[in-house]
Order: sequence, then C-alpha cells, then structure tokens
Amino acid sequence: MVDLLLLGCGGGMPMPNRFLSATLLSYKGRKILIDCGEGTQVSMRISNTGFKSIDVICITHIHGDHIVGLPGLLGTIGNSGRTEPITIIGPEGIEDTINKLRVIANWLPYKINIIENPRKPINIATEFADWNTIISTIELEHSAPCIGYSFDFKRQRKFDVEKATQNNVPKNLWGRLQKNEKKINFEGIDYTDEMVLGEERKGIKISITTDTRPIDSISDFIKESDFFICEGTYGDDEDLPKAIKNKHMTFTEAATLAENGKVKNLLLTHFGTAMTEPEEYVDNAKVIFNNSIIGFDRYKVTLNFEEE
Amino acid sequence: MVDLLLLGCGGGMPMPNRFLSATLLSYKGRKILIDCGEGTQVSMRISNTGFKSIDVICITHIHGDHIVGLPGLLGTIGNSGRTEPITIIGPEGIEDTINKLRVIANWLPYKINIIENPRKPINIATEFADWNTIISTIELEHSAPCIGYSFDFKRQRKFDVEKATQNNVPKNLWGRLQKNEKKINFEGIDYTDEMVLGEERKGIKISITTDTRPIDSISDFIKESDFFICEGTYGDDEDLPKAIKNKHMTFTEAATLAENGKVKNLLLTHFGTAMTEPEEYVDNAKVIFNNSIIGFDRYKVTLNFEEE
Repeated sequence: MVDLLLLGCGGGMPMPNRFLSATLLSYKGRKILIDCGEGTQVSMRISNTGFKSIDVICITHIHGDHIVGLPGLLGTIGNSGRTEPITIIGPEGIEDTINKLRVIANWLPYKINIIENPRKPINIATEFADWNTIISTIELEHSAPCIGYSFDFKRQRKFDVEKATQNNVPKNLWGRLQKNEKKINFEGIDYTDEMVLGEERKGIKISITTDTRPIDSISDFIKESDFFICEGTYGDDEDLPKAIKNKHMTFTEAATLAENGKVKNLLLTHFGTAMTEPEEYVDNAKVIFNNSIIGFDRYKVTLNFEEE
Repeated sequence: MVDLLLLGCGGGMPMPNRFLSATLLSYKGRKILIDCGEGTQVSMRISNTGFKSIDVICITHIHGDHIVGLPGLLGTIGNSGRTEPITIIGPEGIEDTINKLRVIANWLPYKINIIENPRKPINIATEFADWNTIISTIELEHSAPCIGYSFDFKRQRKFDVEKATQNNVPKNLWGRLQKNEKKINFEGIDYTDEMVLGEERKGIKISITTDTRPIDSISDFIKESDFFICEGTYGDDEDLPKAIKNKHMTFTEAATLAENGKVKNLLLTHFGTAMTEPEEYVDNAKVIFNNSIIGFDRYKVTLNFEEE
C-alpha cells in the first residue's frame, strides 16, 4: 500500500491555514516528496512523518511556492542523522538552483544526486531493493520550465507453486527467483524467474501535474491513475482568462483531464490565495468528473493494491 | 512609539507552534525586519502586518533558521506592489548569499541595496524623512560570521516657543526649523534649528543579539536598551557545555548580559527544539535580571517615548 499525504494545498503565498505545494508518498517505510514550498517541514512535523527516510525529492518547477522550503528541509534531514544519498529530480535549471540554494544549507552529511529533466522513466528500484517503482515525467506548459510526474508502484508477482513444481525448479532456488534474481544456473541447468512467478499484477499509479495549462498530452500521461493530483488555481469558471494568462487551470479544466485520462480519483490542490473556500466550487469539477476531491493541508489517503 | 513583534521564537528547526527567528519593528507606519526564518511571512500574515512597508531587513547570520524565509518573503513583498528599494543589512557574505537565493526570487519590482557588515552606525533617516533612526552593529561569536543590531529611534526635540521668541525667529520659519532644516537665511539673517528647539529627549533603544556566546562587548553595545532581545537556546544551566560547544547561550548568561547592560527588559528567544516549555526555566533568568520575559510567537509590545 502507498500513503499519499498532501502537505500543503496553497499556491502563490503561504496562508495561516494553508501551506504551499508539497506532497509526500510513503511506500514500505521510504518516502518520495514532490515539491517543497515554504512550511513543508512544519506540515511534516505536524503529521509526524519523520525526515530521515525521504529518498527522492521531485521538484515540478523553480517558483518560490514550490521550492522555498527545500534548503531548510535539506538541513533538517541532515539533522535527522541521514547519511544515505538523496536524489533530487527537477526541470531544466534544477542543478544550478540546488547549488545556489546550498549557500544556506552548505554542510550536509549526505550526498545529493541531481537528475535534470529526465526524458525517460527512472526505475528507482536499484537503490532501494524493496521497491520497484517507475518515475515518469512530462513537460508541462507554465511560465517557467515545469514537469509533471507519475509514480508507478509496481506490484510484485505472486509465487506460483504449481508452476515452479511443473518446471522442476529445485526448492532451494525458489526464494531467490521470487525476490530479485532473473536467472540462476544450478547443476548445469538455467532456472528463470518466469518459471516460478504468476501473472503480472496491477500496481498503484499516482500522477501529479502542477503548475500548467491543461495540455493534451496530460490525459495520456495520467492514464488510469489511481490518484491524479492536479492544480486547480481557480475554482470559478469566470476566472478562465486569468488561468490562461497565468498558465494555470480552472477546476473545470482539471476535471476534464481527469475524465479524459480515465483516472480513479482527482485531488485538486494549489488553490489561489484569492480563493478562500475552494469547496464552494467543487461542483464545477464534479459535474464533469464525479470523484473529484478538494484537497486540504494534511489530506491523507491510503491506496491499497487491488484484491485478486 | 515603536511596536515590537516577535514573529518566531524558535531556533534550529520550525516546530508546529514555533516559527523561526524573525522580529518586526514598526515605527510611523514603516518597518524593519530582523532575520527571516522559514514561516516568517506566515506569522506576518497571522498578525496582519502587511508586507509593503518593510524598508530594511537585517540578517544576523547565514544559517538556515535565520534566512530560509527570505526569498519567499521578497517575492511576497513584490506581489504586494512595492516598488521602492529595500535595504538588506547582513554579515560578511550576505551579498553573495542574496544573489544566490534570488535564483528562486529572480523577478522583483524593486531594487535591493545590500550593506555587508557595516562597521559604523547607519542613519536611515535619509531615505525616510520621518525617521531619525540609527542602526548599529556588533560582531558576535557564533559558528558563522554573525552580527547583532541595535536600533536607536531618536526622538524629535520639542519646539520651544519662548526660545524662538527670545531669538527673534520670524514665525513663518518656525515650522521649517522644527522639522528638518538646520539653517535658513531670511532677509540677510541666519536662523538655525538650535534657536527654536528644546533639550534633546530620550529616544527608544532596542537591541538584539542572536546567535552568540555572551562576549564582553555585548554589555556595552546594549547599554540602557529599552528592550534587549537575546537568544536563550538553553534554559537549563546544565546545558552550559552544549551552549559553549554550539556557540549559544543559557538563560543565565543572557540575563547576566541584561543586568550588566542595565537594560530595561530582556526578551528571551531562539529556543532550542529540545526545550518544549522554556517558561519552566524563567527563574534562571529572573534571579539575575528580574525583567526577563520568555518570548513566544507573536509576542507584541508597544514602546512609548518617556513622559516628560
């Protein structure tokens, strides 16, 4: 199962009851953070998430409301005793930005690996043996280089005893083939994982696009996500001209993407400071896509793998 | 009168109910901000201070808990419609730091003037006609270059009608000499402000030292302050070895400085994260200096000029 925690639902400026962009995904005790607006570490502390187990930080774009909290958080992670490297993924310019921001977080007890605008999916299983998660990105349309992310938490295939027996795989190899090893030569014979594993099983897909106009490529990128987290800077359809001018979206536009992408749930976030009660506009989304949720700070949901 | 607002009383890391270092001084509708830890702009928003009238930002040192909030705040000040320049004062290295941090606050509608480690007092009256305020600095002893500040809000001298009449100063010059002009030549005669103004009057002095060991020079620097804001990272005297090691202070040390400096009030702040209830240790300060106050987020006091 994957825990999704919306740490901040605000856009532009932090408000007394609304921190800025930040979402935390937890899986098997390890964490991915997406964006890090000012106050992110406070919201994490309120949620008792801990800081040490953040392995990957994905930055959507280099606007203050998505990244101001990063140097403080990097320091706090350092104080938590972490020594393992952290991977930071971000759009074009992220490396220069991180290097400059480190002027106020210069001593850290861990290494930072930076991946700038990866154009192909990254499998982060290599660093964390228990994971098999693919991070994909998409270039969005905003007033700064901006990328969206999807996280595909692959489910381990079940061990098929019948198949293993039929294939005469020696029992002492079963555990190794089930876990990691693709092929083992034993007493002159090759045994493969295919000889012991059942069907592929559906994983959990979470995607996030903020900040952006609702470009066509998004629907395909978010296809069949269990959760699609999307910016909804404006709730009122009358604000569409502002959304177009400022390269943001209305609830209606976000819901249309969700509908086209056949996702299961839409979580709206990144509310403009002028919109004090986003809930007032929920029907603008629901009329198009019924499973629309208005995010709030520390909204939390647990996503389980499907029953067989 | 001067309003003093402690925006955050925490040290090291922000906590759910304790923002990081930041103090706001307001005088005649204009503001000076000292330090800008993460969350400063949230605390300002809770206090309804507004953002547009901050004219001077004084940074004590370049540690995250004193400066992480700065790029976000600079952006918010820009969004508030400010176009007048802002002066940022800080220790050695502040210019390079500001330039790097602006990678996430690159477009601002106002100019930033940076003053790095000013070794002599700055009179900020020149830019704000209504002010006559002297900012002085002192080099402190911390693990990074760090400076303390004192703010001397000078009081205008009273107009002395009797003296003006005795000196035969024409009535049409009274207003100009009282306000700004040192000397006016009228019908061939020089008239000076000294001919119409009464005695010098005591102003309001506020001083702040954080983060530092209690070095001897502080007592003189803070001499007779109306408010002395001082770090008190450790309340318990048993933590003195930690205070020495980490270049901080105990309440006892801060109170000793207050006593030696003959200040009127000591406001303790910058509490270590391990100290959840600083009030528990207030007696350690009060036994040495009775007017010791344990700061808290949004502690506010109005300092009036003395009655005559």
